[in-house]
Amino acid sequence: MPKMSEHIVARFDDELRRLMTGVAEMGGIVEEQLASAVSALVRRDVEAAARVVVGDKRLDDLEAEIEGHIVSLLARRSPVARDLREVVATLKVIHNLERMGDFARNIAKRAQTLSGLEFVGPVRTIEAMGRIVGDMVHEIVEAYISQDVARAMLARERDAAVDGFHNSLFRELLTYMMESPQNITACTHLMFIAKNLERVGDHATNMAEALHFWITGDAVRGERDKADTTASLTAKS
Amino acid sequence: MPKMSEHIVARFDDELRRLMTGVAEMGGIVEEQLASAVSALVRRDVEAAARVVVGDKRLDDLEAEIEGHIVSLLARRSPVARDLREVVATLKVIHNLERMGDFARNIAKRAQTLSGLEFVGPVRTIEAMGRIVGDMVHEIVEAYISQDVARAMLARERDAAVDGFHNSLFRELLTYMMESPQNITACTHLMFIAKNLERVGDHATNMAEALHFWITGDAVRGERDKADTTASLTAKS
Repeated sequence: MPKMSEHIVARFDDELRRLMTGVAEMGGIVEEQLASAVSALVRRDVEAAARVVVGDKRLDDLEAEIEGHIVSLLARRSPVARDLREVVATLKVIHNLERMGDFARNIAKRAQTLSGLEFVGPVRTIEAMGRIVGDMVHEIVEAYISQDVARAMLARERDAAVDGFHNSLFRELLTYMMESPQNITACTHLMFIAKNLERVGDHATNMAEALHFWITGDAVRGERDKADTTASLTAKS
Repeated sequence: MPKMSEHIVARFDDELRRLMTGVAEMGGIVEEQLASAVSALVRRDVEAAARVVVGDKRLDDLEAEIEGHIVSLLARRSPVARDLREVVATLKVIHNLERMGDFARNIAKRAQTLSGLEFVGPVRTIEAMGRIVGDMVHEIVEAYISQDVARAMLARERDAAVDGFHNSLFRELLTYMMESPQNITACTHLMFIAKNLERVGDHATNMAEALHFWITGDAVRGERDKADTTASLTAKS
């Protein structure tokens, strides 16, 4: 009998491992999509931007596929305790990754629009912000796969830097817009791109918190202070 | 023995009903928060806006509480088939409602900022857009609670009107900004408010699709054409 039950346990672990492979695949694509979208913006590369827009479909498909596995696994295996938390956390995580993909797609669409406009704007600062966000996503996906809560919590702290970038970009973009009406349309799109990157940071934070819940059984205590204050910013503040 | 099993079934139904009561409560709060945030914007009512910002906590707490019930229910009851789909769909729905609350809070924060600015902007159009979004949320929450897929699918169609509002507001706001630099800061916040309302419409759409999956066991076939084209808009287009 022990052999039989070991066999069942092994198969269950296989199924959980397969979920994690799916998360890793989605994470890798998200990182790539984000980097390509921002690089398409900087290089005014319309074709690269178009590839990002089309490529987002793969993330939608993967999310649907993994969700199907999860529902099937819940029905057949009835996991409890830590295994159940892993499955529920993974359901959240794939949703967060899919949303990050939507933001990358939206950045790519705006990169297409911006490539046709003449403007002055802090594109290089957005590139730097994109790098920080990309690193944060990378760290948290790796932490999730290796079940390393400490690594995820450390990477989560970087969201403050992302919010800081967003705040200063918001102010800077307002200034560009006021200096010259020709900049207004472009800088509006750049504002939404910065906002998209800030939202990706929030979703990465959610992922880190989902990992914390899975491993410890507790929600993260004390919400991280949100440092994004753009909703209160004016040109003078 | 039949009595015993009937008893168990009845208790399980009770638990599912309790989840639905939670969804109804969250839905009611979301509707109220959205309406109050937009009304605070229109009436320049800083205190009403502050109440919305504070009130969002209740939605975060309710989401956490209902999620706790769901994880416990999965562990104890191991639901399958339609019951499992209901539970998984409800997990998504409470997350969508919580996000809608975040958007209402963000609108309220921007209403506070805007109340201190002198500007010309299409505030009344945003009020009209808010009403359509509010109605859509109301219909879809009601449909979810009464398990009425047809009603949800009908309300989901309204998202096209929401996207239409968003597109025309985006253009109109660009024009206001170009006309006068004094309008730029305020109109930027109004743009993000319109975007927030558009995103609430997307989350309502997600809720309708979660209901469809729960009741029919299938994803909604053929994605609704996204009519939000603001990422491609310029002042001239």
